Amino acid sequence: MSTDRGEIETPIFMPVGTKAAVKTLSPADLNDTGTQIILGNTYHLYLRPGQELIHDFGGIHKFMNWNKPVLTDSGGYQVFSLKDFRKIDEQGVSFQSHLDGSRHRFTPASVLDIQRSLGSDIMMVLDECAPYPSEREYALKSNELTLKWAREAREIYEDWSPLYGFRQQLFGIVQGSTFKDLRENSAAELIKMDFPGYAVGGLAVGEPKEIMYEITDFCTDILPVEKPRYLMGVGMPEDIIESIDRGIDMFDCVIPTRNARNGTIFSRNGKMVLKSARFREDQKPIDGECSCYTCRNFSRGYIRHLYNTNEMLGLRLATIHNVHFYLWLVQQARKNILNDTFADWKQKILSEITSTITE
Amino acid sequence: MSTDRGEIETPIFMPVGTKAAVKTLSPADLNDTGTQIILGNTYHLYLRPGQELIHDFGGIHKFMNWNKPVLTDSGGYQVFSLKDFRKIDEQGVSFQSHLDGSRHRFTPASVLDIQRSLGSDIMMVLDECAPYPSEREYALKSNELTLKWAREAREIYEDWSPLYGFRQQLFGIVQGSTFKDLRENSAAELIKMDFPGYAVGGLAVGEPKEIMYEITDFCTDILPVEKPRYLMGVGMPEDIIESIDRGIDMFDCVIPTRNARNGTIFSRNGKMVLKSARFREDQKPIDGECSCYTCRNFSRGYIRHLYNTNEMLGLRLATIHNVHFYLWLVQQARKNILNDTFADWKQKILSEITSTITE
Repeated sequence: MSTDRGEIETPIFMPVGTKAAVKTLSPADLNDTGTQIILGNTYHLYLRPGQELIHDFGGIHKFMNWNKPVLTDSGGYQVFSLKDFRKIDEQGVSFQSHLDGSRHRFTPASVLDIQRSLGSDIMMVLDECAPYPSEREYALKSNELTLKWAREAREIYEDWSPLYGFRQQLFGIVQGSTFKDLRENSAAELIKMDFPGYAVGGLAVGEPKEIMYEITDFCTDILPVEKPRYLMGVGMPEDIIESIDRGIDMFDCVIPTRNARNGTIFSRNGKMVLKSARFREDQKPIDGECSCYTCRNFSRGYIRHLYNTNEMLGLRLATIHNVHFYLWLVQQARKNILNDTFADWKQKILSEITSTITE
Repeated sequence: MSTDRGEIETPIFMPVGTKAAVKTLSPADLNDTGTQIILGNTYHLYLRPGQELIHDFGGIHKFMNWNKPVLTDSGGYQVFSLKDFRKIDEQGVSFQSHLDGSRHRFTPASVLDIQRSLGSDIMMVLDECAPYPSEREYALKSNELTLKWAREAREIYEDWSPLYGFRQQLFGIVQGSTFKDLRENSAAELIKMDFPGYAVGGLAVGEPKEIMYEITDFCTDILPVEKPRYLMGVGMPEDIIESIDRGIDMFDCVIPTRNARNGTIFSRNGKMVLKSARFREDQKPIDGECSCYTCRNFSRGYIRHLYNTNEMLGLRLATIHNVHFYLWLVQQARKNILNDTFADWKQKILSEITSTITE
């Protein structure tokens, strides 16, 4: 994948930097983990610090001092999660801030305008993410609305001029809940609009894993292989491998960062609840083969002590490791795809990473 | 000052790493700030993770992956702060843990034994820190007890063998509250015991600044100039400069780290409440001349945003700056002492650092 802020090797995982920071990490930390692109949340940035402020600072890259690519979502997912505090109509969605109850409105045009101020390298169209489970009728109407909004966004984007001298791409989002004909219609209509990349949205919202994999597979069979295909909000390490196998190129998820702060660690040898007392005396690194700053310098016992004594350093060290691991995982997938050894590697790595480390 | 883990240029400030971590900072961060030695708290480390665990890990340096010198206090100050939950006798002090109420006892011998397990480069004798104000009679008795304990510690130290192959020094602590004759007696008796360094304790406990400076001055006039003189728990940047002027070589204090987390920043241009809304749009670094990671890479407005959105990165960036500033300040003091320009520099820097930055 190519952006004005550099090439991105796919498949890629994007750490989530909700409010112009990947929680606990500095840009230097992110570079050390091998991060190539991060995700920012339009909804949160719109509320704090606000579109104008980031505009004044020259965009999100300058604001947070991150020079590599940024993808921003449309804010739709967060707004639709507000449930009782938002109201959808044909033209957009009105909502109340989760912070202070103040009233706001997102439209296909306004979220693009915000993302223009943010200056993200990849922007997303406003969509409605139907909940799971959805009735067919609801999913159909929702899908039609999402397509209408995608057309409006695509039209605005036709004469796009970015603010800060770096091109901005715009991705479409396939919706349609768990209904294959709706997914097919959604993908076909978006392909006609010719976006530079396509996301699969509306998954990882509570449906069984098999359905997630099936719909993902179904969508990637339709979406053009020569363009990036992005599975939004996924997921656990095993989900990422399964989805790469089904043709997905891009991922974002809070799991590696959130779980790190909760004390759960991923590694090539499996998962571990590092804040558990069982690791109190453990002088080994999290993963002796891992090359991240945390594994090169600290023991499980020390990090467990930091959790136990509420020292923030522990959250950061764990986050560095988890993000590094996710980036390592997608790099390994890439290598094995290029070497034509993906199937064997997948079988081996899945059994390793899904085990639980107890000593 | 010389230790087996390296030379220390004095005057020096020691960031406080209470529980085997300087809050929010990694060892790499500490090195970047110019930190030469840190302080660890024996009381906290004794409770969590415990003497045995740190012994098993090969000492505090290996446990936290910090290769430069560490000074540990005796734990006395924390124990005496427990007030109703401790009881002093001639042989030591019994206390209840602030964590779980469990019962423990510190003696001059036991705190040395703990500090031997920690493997600190500089150990402190158990002392009683009299509160301010203290009656003369209380201060006299307290001082006699502190001297008795210092003699016991000095005797144990006579045949000292460290655990991890690095020599450990033992410092005495001058007490005597605000009574000069008691301070004189305390210093004279400790000098007879011939410690490699001396601390001035029992100050910065609520007394007026003039008294703190006066007693500091009085003590450094008596204590040998060729040995390090350490003013415990001090202080604000201006206190450090005033105390260097009065002959102090070593300082520790939670102010730069704690205030950073509370949103207060120190710099050569003055103090600022960085989390204040007035810095919302400020694109300047905290201090344009400062060479710390924070000032080289981030604006006041961005760090203020991180405070405002509870992003931990903000606390770390602010801590990096404040610690770097404290280290810069003592380095500048050293340069000006060596150049014989201290008096002029002091006057200039005091007016600069004590002002308040509002824009």
